[in-house]
Amino acid sequence: MDSKQKFKRSIENRKHICIGLDSDIKKIPFFLLNSEDPLFEFNKIIIDSTIDYAGAYKLNFAFYENEGLKGLNSLKKTIEYIGDNSFIIGDAKRGDIGNTSAMYASALFDHFKVDASTLHPYMGFDSISPFLNYSEKINFILALTSNPGANDFEKLKLTNGDYLYKFVIKKVIEWNRSENCGIVFGATQLSELIDSIDLIKKVPVLLPGVGAQGGDLQEIVSIFKQHSINNFLINSSRGIIYKDSSKNFGKAAKDELTKLNTTVLTVFSI
Amino acid sequence: MDSKQKFKRSIENRKHICIGLDSDIKKIPFFLLNSEDPLFEFNKIIIDSTIDYAGAYKLNFAFYENEGLKGLNSLKKTIEYIGDNSFIIGDAKRGDIGNTSAMYASALFDHFKVDASTLHPYMGFDSISPFLNYSEKINFILALTSNPGANDFEKLKLTNGDYLYKFVIKKVIEWNRSENCGIVFGATQLSELIDSIDLIKKVPVLLPGVGAQGGDLQEIVSIFKQHSINNFLINSSRGIIYKDSSKNFGKAAKDELTKLNTTVLTVFSI
Repeated sequence: MDSKQKFKRSIENRKHICIGLDSDIKKIPFFLLNSEDPLFEFNKIIIDSTIDYAGAYKLNFAFYENEGLKGLNSLKKTIEYIGDNSFIIGDAKRGDIGNTSAMYASALFDHFKVDASTLHPYMGFDSISPFLNYSEKINFILALTSNPGANDFEKLKLTNGDYLYKFVIKKVIEWNRSENCGIVFGATQLSELIDSIDLIKKVPVLLPGVGAQGGDLQEIVSIFKQHSINNFLINSSRGIIYKDSSKNFGKAAKDELTKLNTTVLTVFSI
Repeated sequence: MDSKQKFKRSIENRKHICIGLDSDIKKIPFFLLNSEDPLFEFNKIIIDSTIDYAGAYKLNFAFYENEGLKGLNSLKKTIEYIGDNSFIIGDAKRGDIGNTSAMYASALFDHFKVDASTLHPYMGFDSISPFLNYSEKINFILALTSNPGANDFEKLKLTNGDYLYKFVIKKVIEWNRSENCGIVFGATQLSELIDSIDLIKKVPVLLPGVGAQGGDLQEIVSIFKQHSINNFLINSSRGIIYKDSSKNFGKAAKDELTKLNTTVLTVFSI
């Protein structure tokens, strides 16, 4: 099953929750620190507990790069452990000039073998296009992010009448000839989500920011439901993986995921 | 000697050329491919030949990530081999929400131990600030890049009258309280360089795009000279490291660097 089919299967089964494996050596349960590869052991238990209910897994590369080569080895092992049957997002937020972006694209898709990337739009089309050459993958391009800094540049008004983030979305739609573009849109940005919904519905959307960052799951899902849109994944990281710090953290993560899944199903069934 | 002092020493000695170690397994001389770590062996010879004449080395992480864990090991070994006496830029173009950017900052500065970063501005201040907490480093934030895609977003006009890249520079100057901010400005963008020179002179500037990308060294240096500015580094990657593909590639790199250094010195002596 290719990456796009996996994405499609997740959303058709109403599995809209993506688990962010932001696994941090300083935050994982203490008893794991004696194992040979604590980050991988932590991920393994989270994956074992959630794989039947998760729409996707998102691996933010920062948390693994932070541990150097050892961490990147944990990252690779984790991706292999999740396996071919789940949709895996390599959240690396890359972007460079063309010949260099081609290297990043190959690192993500050929070496780490993820199904999807996240990308910075700032440097424009030739920084994105090497990723788009992987026609079977999905590339989520940052449009409006969930953090306070989104106000600094993303929400600036352009002389053509658009906000920068909205113009980025329009460009992404233009670039979507192989139907392998998506956008990142912060779950904390409700009014902007409503305002841009007619554009947003044209591409897959990854929404981070639910949970620790304050985004409200029910409200987000309601907006998509009202507009008959289902091509979205909502990411929760800390809210799921650090729900419990005892030996039961796997079950606690599963319970939290089930709760979020129920919220999604409830909104869609109303 | 701390990172800022190393930068200062380079520019005071008129060593304005930064060598980009964009070392690509498909492009390095064929005879190196039999060695255990070809990328490192290639870098070692370039470094041995140029270290007395280079103002800085820039390691673009993409070229190493492309080789997976082995490549990142070559990257780490290269940084250690260059040693504490040269200014080393970790050209990773990172940027994420605050708690995640802190992880990237630590990866670059604590794990890989580079002197400087390159950063995407798109996500705003909290995506940059964890890097700024390293007060002794220099963080080159992308303003106007050298690639064709710079036209897509960076050169958009804002309703406040600025082009986006110019507004980014203004913000960077605002964020520069610890005097550890710099900007990336494409060496292919001459008229924009002249137009923004009064802002640009307030922070260190890294200019990629000379050589393979078409930027003209003499013209760039002349602009800085005319405005009595010396806090800049001009990067050349492919033009230096792939000057020759025979066993003499080290000497060829040194000769090319010497030629560029002479151009710089000539402009400043006129």
